[in-house]
Amino acid sequence: MSKNKTDYEAMNQNSTDNTAYQLNTAALGNGAITFAIMQTNFWVGDIAGNVKKMRALALDAKDKGADIVIFPELSLIGYPPEDLLLRPTLAERVKNAMNELAQIEGIVIILGYPHIDHHGTFNSAAILQGGAQKGFYHKQHLPNYGIFDERRYFAKGRNHVLFDYKGVTIGLLICEDIWHDAPIKALKDEGADLVVVLNASPFEIGKQAQRKELLNSQAKKHELPIIYANTVGAQDDIVFDGGSLIMQADGQIAHEGARFLNQLIMAQFDAAAKRFDTQAKPPLALSEESEMYQALVVGLRDYVNRSGFKGVIVGLSGGIDSALTLCIAVDALGADKVYAVMMPYEYTSNISLEDAAAQAARLNVSYTVCPIHDAVGGLRSTLAPLFVGEANGTTEENLQARARGTILMALSNTYGHMVISTSNKSENAVGYSTLYGDMVGGFDVLKDVYKTDVYRLANYRNRLEDNPVIPERVITRAPSAELRADQTDQDSLPDYDTLDAILKMYIDEDLGYKAICAAGFEPALVERVLSLVDRAEHKRRQGAIGTKITKKSFGRERRYPLVNGWAIKG
Amino acid sequence: MSKNKTDYEAMNQNSTDNTAYQLNTAALGNGAITFAIMQTNFWVGDIAGNVKKMRALALDAKDKGADIVIFPELSLIGYPPEDLLLRPTLAERVKNAMNELAQIEGIVIILGYPHIDHHGTFNSAAILQGGAQKGFYHKQHLPNYGIFDERRYFAKGRNHVLFDYKGVTIGLLICEDIWHDAPIKALKDEGADLVVVLNASPFEIGKQAQRKELLNSQAKKHELPIIYANTVGAQDDIVFDGGSLIMQADGQIAHEGARFLNQLIMAQFDAAAKRFDTQAKPPLALSEESEMYQALVVGLRDYVNRSGFKGVIVGLSGGIDSALTLCIAVDALGADKVYAVMMPYEYTSNISLEDAAAQAARLNVSYTVCPIHDAVGGLRSTLAPLFVGEANGTTEENLQARARGTILMALSNTYGHMVISTSNKSENAVGYSTLYGDMVGGFDVLKDVYKTDVYRLANYRNRLEDNPVIPERVITRAPSAELRADQTDQDSLPDYDTLDAILKMYIDEDLGYKAICAAGFEPALVERVLSLVDRAEHKRRQGAIGTKITKKSFGRERRYPLVNGWAIKG
Repeated sequence: MSKNKTDYEAMNQNSTDNTAYQLNTAALGNGAITFAIMQTNFWVGDIAGNVKKMRALALDAKDKGADIVIFPELSLIGYPPEDLLLRPTLAERVKNAMNELAQIEGIVIILGYPHIDHHGTFNSAAILQGGAQKGFYHKQHLPNYGIFDERRYFAKGRNHVLFDYKGVTIGLLICEDIWHDAPIKALKDEGADLVVVLNASPFEIGKQAQRKELLNSQAKKHELPIIYANTVGAQDDIVFDGGSLIMQADGQIAHEGARFLNQLIMAQFDAAAKRFDTQAKPPLALSEESEMYQALVVGLRDYVNRSGFKGVIVGLSGGIDSALTLCIAVDALGADKVYAVMMPYEYTSNISLEDAAAQAARLNVSYTVCPIHDAVGGLRSTLAPLFVGEANGTTEENLQARARGTILMALSNTYGHMVISTSNKSENAVGYSTLYGDMVGGFDVLKDVYKTDVYRLANYRNRLEDNPVIPERVITRAPSAELRADQTDQDSLPDYDTLDAILKMYIDEDLGYKAICAAGFEPALVERVLSLVDRAEHKRRQGAIGTKITKKSFGRERRYPLVNGWAIKG
Repeated sequence: MSKNKTDYEAMNQNSTDNTAYQLNTAALGNGAITFAIMQTNFWVGDIAGNVKKMRALALDAKDKGADIVIFPELSLIGYPPEDLLLRPTLAERVKNAMNELAQIEGIVIILGYPHIDHHGTFNSAAILQGGAQKGFYHKQHLPNYGIFDERRYFAKGRNHVLFDYKGVTIGLLICEDIWHDAPIKALKDEGADLVVVLNASPFEIGKQAQRKELLNSQAKKHELPIIYANTVGAQDDIVFDGGSLIMQADGQIAHEGARFLNQLIMAQFDAAAKRFDTQAKPPLALSEESEMYQALVVGLRDYVNRSGFKGVIVGLSGGIDSALTLCIAVDALGADKVYAVMMPYEYTSNISLEDAAAQAARLNVSYTVCPIHDAVGGLRSTLAPLFVGEANGTTEENLQARARGTILMALSNTYGHMVISTSNKSENAVGYSTLYGDMVGGFDVLKDVYKTDVYRLANYRNRLEDNPVIPERVITRAPSAELRADQTDQDSLPDYDTLDAILKMYIDEDLGYKAICAAGFEPALVERVLSLVDRAEHKRRQGAIGTKITKKSFGRERRYPLVNGWAIKG
């Protein structure tokens, strides 16, 4: 039984791949323009599928009385398309798709698409009406930082574009444009009554609050109402969280789309008053834990479904990382698609076995216990002649981790389920995980979740239902990899509060040694942690992708040379 | 005994990390400017080390009579520095370094460095003389395609820069600038007598010929002599191949630097005649096989040396990929740093065992035979209860590959040697390799070498010495992964000539299904190959890096979404 229906809404939805959506609408009056904002996911590369989806959604919006339907940034090809934008057949595919969409009668369509002509490829918005493309706008500010590489693909737009509909002058912008002043000011100067912004704005913690602040400021400063249409759903390591916004010229929010959900937002714009109608019941703001958790659910769900695997395999250890991963997997895919495997060895404690079994039972997933003694024994036996005396501790520990990785991959090969890994951001940062061992898998669910946030999310998930799904002991016991007798994480790492504080400064904030020491941390510890991070780059480079939730994830937005001579203290 | 001394020069050099260099100079006359072009490697990130190296080299050039010493693009921080350019302490480090270099007396220094001021960060060239920085130039054309992400980091320069020395007006350019017409034309219009271009131009097959053609054309068109100073050595997956050029205004080459070698090129410029002296004996052009091979040697050598490993481990299978990899490793690091391990199982043939032993003996490397029957047996025993009946063929084959990977990694953990992997580009393309199995390792030597080129390079290497280092049978036998009885690669793949021809069109040339079919390949085969390539993206993403030698490697220059809906035939 769910205690918190709001928090559960997103995770119990079907994949954002389908065309089902929630309807968000107010009572409609007369003599106004009715906008339909389609906060929906469009699959990267699947132009034919996206056209089919747009057609169905546009006709549906028309039936519901919309004058203008708005699809998000690059909705025709999905975001981010990366090097698919360089494919030589793209221009023809786009042309055919746009011609097909232009045939739709009785509704104006605004959509994002890659515009290709002799000036180059542009990130553009098209206005389709009555059998033809009536206009287009090219994005002017092309982000090329963080996760973004838009200048690799797109030429810069130079002109602002407005069009009139029922006496209202509507200006177009795309995503990054609205974060700058010049584009919206130019639209205002040209007589815009209203600005429509198409977005593919990726999630990170606290992003929706930033968007609201920005739009409030831009609406008030330029005295313009704004429609901010965002996409939703995941692409590889990026999640789009929806939360589309319709803002009055005075900075008040007229409508706010749900987060992480397909939604059709219908809103009327009164041409005389230059105001939107107001949403009857705006959504509650999500807590930080809730938005993190939902992002992880959507990220895993869309990746697994699109990759064509029939389900996922999780190595359950009795520890908190695999416990939380299992919850997310069940919430993302349903218990019938999740297979938990416990692989005990000599150092596995009884409480680990008990707690792993308890979680699996509570979540109603397939659960198998597979002792790895024979596998480790066989590897040791093969290796014995090669070692003078004993292998060292790291070698022995890694053998266990790699035996487990090999077992999981054999199950994946046999049954067609994707192995998902459970390494958190703190571990990935300092290299406290085994390449080809616990790092195996197609997706690393907690890749961008610091260990301290793993605890927060485990407690959050337990609060959602009357019976906690994660046994309390999993949360309270000292964390251990159980790769040797009486091992705990804190044998070789500082406590996680300290470690994560240093890591956040170094990774998320990009601060250096001196600045971190100045924040009050012990210099020798800072040096050790920073050095561990730098030295683990080669491991991270071979790790699975995982959903970005922080300001700077270990994905495409952190690009360091593998071997380099940068001096930590320099 | 070497048959081909020229081809051996590069591979028998020490690492490009040290400051030793070949001297390339002509007899010096009077009344002219003497330039010293330092074709040397500067390690990415190691600003203090690079300053020390520059200081030593500049003083040495001064002793040899140089008026002006030229270091390549971004020599202060190495190329490509990637996100090290975003580190907050960079500005201070650069400032201190430039102040230190400016102290060097008696020689003008031109070097590449990141210039940071309130306008942004620039990719710049500095002129240092007599205790001060006399001027700077900011690169105008910032490449943001292929392997390049310069617009992620740098602001665009807007001005051209010239300076006078002994009555000669010298204009500065940086790398990509010379591939465009406007920058050199502007220098000519402002009265330049000579253009100096600083470069970090990465190697790919045939690149030196392209550079010569470009410089010939630009020199003649603008009637300007050009000094083209390139860097040398490897950084991660990129190799810089030197081959610096000094071009007369009539397009004749006055001096050409050696390829893949540290070299100091000294050349005199006659101010009156506006001509350079001429190199006594220009280097022979390298054959395609020779430049490919040398790039692979330099790439592996610099990566291993800089990563701090004591040597490398190669899993030797008796097949051609591991045979060639072993040769490259020995040429890069010396036989005493290379450890070969043969890991036979049921399907390993006798000729594989014989040929592996023969190669290891011929190359004088450590050779260990480690049968994996126990390891595979243990894994199978652990897995047995989980399978209903037999595991499928792929599972069984992958178990063998992963047992081998785990053994190699255990040796690496114990002895501190880096595992190098042996998957070639054809295999990586179609996913014909096992993740966490034969794909384990820190560096994949043949990652960008098509199978047909593996054969070419094996034959090339055998021709270098009187006794072939690779047994002829390794080259002539049918290729097989030996993961089941009587297996050959052509059971599941087309012949490599056909496969590689399709792959080159799809990957290197970025052509689509229709264009490849139009070139005469069977449509069903084309569809199958393209589909294999697309579906193996998740494997490649977790693979080791390897040296780029082709037009488009599977590295930072091919960025595809992992899951996407792009239709091959669309």
